Amino acid sequence: MTRTDEIFLALDYGGTKLSAAIARRGEREWLAIDRHMSRREKDARYEQAEMLALAHKLLGDRKPAAIGVSFGGPVDAAHGRVILSHHVPGWEDTPLRAQLQSEFGAPASVDNDANVAALGEYTFGAGLVETFAKRVTSLLYVTVSTGVGGGWVIGGKIWNGADAMAGEIGHTIADRNGPLCVCGRHGCVEIMASGTAIANRAKELLKENPGKGKELRELCGNQIDQVTGAMVAQTANSGDELAQQVMDDAARALGFGIGTAITLMNPERVVLGGGITKSGERWWSVVRESARSNTLPQHRINIIPAAFSDDAPLWGAIALAESVIKNQ
Amino acid sequence: MTRTDEIFLALDYGGTKLSAAIARRGEREWLAIDRHMSRREKDARYEQAEMLALAHKLLGDRKPAAIGVSFGGPVDAAHGRVILSHHVPGWEDTPLRAQLQSEFGAPASVDNDANVAALGEYTFGAGLVETFAKRVTSLLYVTVSTGVGGGWVIGGKIWNGADAMAGEIGHTIADRNGPLCVCGRHGCVEIMASGTAIANRAKELLKENPGKGKELRELCGNQIDQVTGAMVAQTANSGDELAQQVMDDAARALGFGIGTAITLMNPERVVLGGGITKSGERWWSVVRESARSNTLPQHRINIIPAAFSDDAPLWGAIALAESVIKNQ
Repeated sequence: MTRTDEIFLALDYGGTKLSAAIARRGEREWLAIDRHMSRREKDARYEQAEMLALAHKLLGDRKPAAIGVSFGGPVDAAHGRVILSHHVPGWEDTPLRAQLQSEFGAPASVDNDANVAALGEYTFGAGLVETFAKRVTSLLYVTVSTGVGGGWVIGGKIWNGADAMAGEIGHTIADRNGPLCVCGRHGCVEIMASGTAIANRAKELLKENPGKGKELRELCGNQIDQVTGAMVAQTANSGDELAQQVMDDAARALGFGIGTAITLMNPERVVLGGGITKSGERWWSVVRESARSNTLPQHRINIIPAAFSDDAPLWGAIALAESVIKNQ
Repeated sequence: MTRTDEIFLALDYGGTKLSAAIARRGEREWLAIDRHMSRREKDARYEQAEMLALAHKLLGDRKPAAIGVSFGGPVDAAHGRVILSHHVPGWEDTPLRAQLQSEFGAPASVDNDANVAALGEYTFGAGLVETFAKRVTSLLYVTVSTGVGGGWVIGGKIWNGADAMAGEIGHTIADRNGPLCVCGRHGCVEIMASGTAIANRAKELLKENPGKGKELRELCGNQIDQVTGAMVAQTANSGDELAQQVMDDAARALGFGIGTAITLMNPERVVLGGGITKSGERWWSVVRESARSNTLPQHRINIIPAAFSDDAPLWGAIALAESVIKNQ
């Protein structure tokens, strides 16, 4: 029994941003969507109150048929509990699914943001195989922005791992002689390939090489400490050699990590999202070449851009909500 | 409807050895088992004739309810086709499932040997969680003998990958400055951690260090070119320092690869089989320490010995045969 007037509620606890949206079952456009920047004085209870207000405003007097949730931190998806937030204190061991089910009187499903974004791309975005109007069997989603995160969809389902710790491609090693990562090891993909890593490496090279990086220096107004990953990407595209070197090294490290993941899991497709993936064709070429050279010849290299820019977690939350109804 | 007199046929095309066994449905002992060393003049058609003769001898006038097959080479499991054999020429693109179904008049399922061994350990061996009389949710099986191979069981099923190329942990990189592998890259886990790699490294060190490796030299009768991985393992256990160094380096490379796999997939358990895993407690300690140091603190390190020594592929074939019946 499918009621076409049913509404799904999607929530994305993004750390710096709270997003909520509603969509009619089976439709691929938002009925309503709203975003709210988090306040500076961050706290779990306050954040949850903001999110509930956002959701109630969207819903009005309508009741959702099911709720899907993307959360920025590790989640015990089987029990619907947040383990902790990467951004906001006070979320430790929170029964978020139970809270939402009680608040809205509807079944809910909660998972980690990289996993939910992977499911969103799989279900509604880059996971679709257009020629055959079907989906790939497996997909690795990698988000490359301030950090590097990842999520797996295998056989149509999120693969969380045994302890909600799968998909940590950012902490596979690309170069054991690389810089020290916050995790205590050297040369993780994240410390070599993220936006933060790109900015830091560019700053180092600008300081070490006073005669190089003319365009990048101009763009940052000679305020080397203000250099961002986006500035490096932009000047690399317009031909700044120092910026190109930094971007190439970052792309090579990311491609190495993706190659390792392909060698181990042979996914049908790898989907890359996040700000750094807007860096232009040269960056993509180096990522693909590096992945190719870190796999066996029989391994397929199918690395494509994400279909969504910001909404992958929200659409993934819709897919979670649909699966809750199906499994009831 | 379960008929307790039903018989399953398990076949293992192992390259140097052909094995066939039959078991009654639900029983955990062989009704009959037979093995046949492959002849030197290897050929797919001859090998298949030998295997069929072996199976018919075991079955007598009984008809199997289903057939499970472990094959030493890449397999297109979805279509039951052998892609090629790693050991025997002439197997290229063979419809093995169709051949067996026609020969025995029973449904069959075929997969790659590392995958089938993983399923065998998962279903009947190291995948069992004894305290709770249930199974783990996910398992990486790694075989460490002349080469290093791997297979995944995720959510109770073999994960083949999109092109039957998943589980190639032997060709993830442990050390980019390591020796050249047959795959064309440097420092693959296989070229650093396999029995072949251990023997080769020991030979090198014995030649370079005339005063070292006393016990290993004695064991091989000063025939350095005759040194095997098993000899290195044995003398490492009895205290030969050169042999210990070789074994430690090999264990460290293997642990590094396992750590990468854990970081990416967070399996509930990692199961190690193959001759090199008989190398003693020191080897296991170094493997576990190396895996631990190549993961995040939140990643579980649960690395245990395989329950079967030789029969994992045959028991996995029984599990495949059972799944054929269930899915009918």
